[in-house]
Amino acid sequence: MPRGRFITLEGGEGSGKSTQARLLADAIGARGHDVVLTREPGGTAGAEAIRSLLVTGSADRWTAWSEALLMTAARVDHVERIIRPALARGAMVICDRYVDSTRAYQGAGHGLSDAALLRLHEDAVGLWPDLTLVFQLDETEGLARAAARGDAEARFERLGSDFHARIAGFFAALPANDPARCRAINAAGSVQDVAARIMAAL
Amino acid sequence: MPRGRFITLEGGEGSGKSTQARLLADAIGARGHDVVLTREPGGTAGAEAIRSLLVTGSADRWTAWSEALLMTAARVDHVERIIRPALARGAMVICDRYVDSTRAYQGAGHGLSDAALLRLHEDAVGLWPDLTLVFQLDETEGLARAAARGDAEARFERLGSDFHARIAGFFAALPANDPARCRAINAAGSVQDVAARIMAAL
Repeated sequence: MPRGRFITLEGGEGSGKSTQARLLADAIGARGHDVVLTREPGGTAGAEAIRSLLVTGSADRWTAWSEALLMTAARVDHVERIIRPALARGAMVICDRYVDSTRAYQGAGHGLSDAALLRLHEDAVGLWPDLTLVFQLDETEGLARAAARGDAEARFERLGSDFHARIAGFFAALPANDPARCRAINAAGSVQDVAARIMAAL
Repeated sequence: MPRGRFITLEGGEGSGKSTQARLLADAIGARGHDVVLTREPGGTAGAEAIRSLLVTGSADRWTAWSEALLMTAARVDHVERIIRPALARGAMVICDRYVDSTRAYQGAGHGLSDAALLRLHEDAVGLWPDLTLVFQLDETEGLARAAARGDAEARFERLGSDFHARIAGFFAALPANDPARCRAINAAGSVQDVAARIMAAL
């Protein structure tokens, strides 16, 4: 059986990734394909336990490296228990956030070396997506959307506008920096508009 | 003010590290030195929260890389919040387990690459002990001691004799592999005998 395909959705807060991941999984499932929709950090019991350490508490609860390592520990669990088995049986895996979020938040946002984060991913995880959809949205609009949603997991959203501008800069540059894997998706406009752009990119 | 010295105690289960760490801290404190006694995984609120994920549940709860990353996330928190500030004010820091335990348990025990674990330590932590006391004890005797103690954190002790033999092999080889930093301590015999050997090694 051919290995399935692994698609990740990346972008800043409130860029609509989670909604679009669900719509994409529904569209693929409706065509009769085996599809697994998942998210990071989370997706397994162990990763959800780590997620609960990460998304609650004060903004300075963890140093940047602790945060990156907790994210990666959860990613290893998720990849070994969910993503690799699904790909091995031929399923399409749609994942809301993956390694590029660590590079954006702990790398560009908190100043960790991108080269060190890439080494960590290679050593500990070793799985890259076949395709990454990188949502492009003005970060002010994204944060306003996230605030309107009343998200309880607000620790990352309290980190200030400079931090989110650095993240937006990382995601803006990513498609050109890794064109073989990444596609930019304009995330402005209605849910239907963005969904149509994603289907066109696929 | 001169930076303090950082001493770690390493070895297998039941080798008497925790008891000796306490005695060593008491002896140094009795001479009027500022001394900080701590342990891994743990030592800060964040690291203790990670520790509780690590030491409970079934032996296969985490994959080896998740375990190594959780250990290192806790280590980063511990180093940044406790160890580096203590060293900066001139204190002697005595730590029960540190990076060599990750190399022994997740590396030698579970088969992760020692080179990758060393890269991870350099990138994420970047602090090496001035001196590491490596307790040498037949692992069967050590496990019997640990079992007699009735330790509730028994997950690591259920991993089987082959696993513990690999760990004992790592600790047996470490002093010769890194003689500038490490000293072998014969951990057989009474608490007083071992304490006398440690004072002689210092």
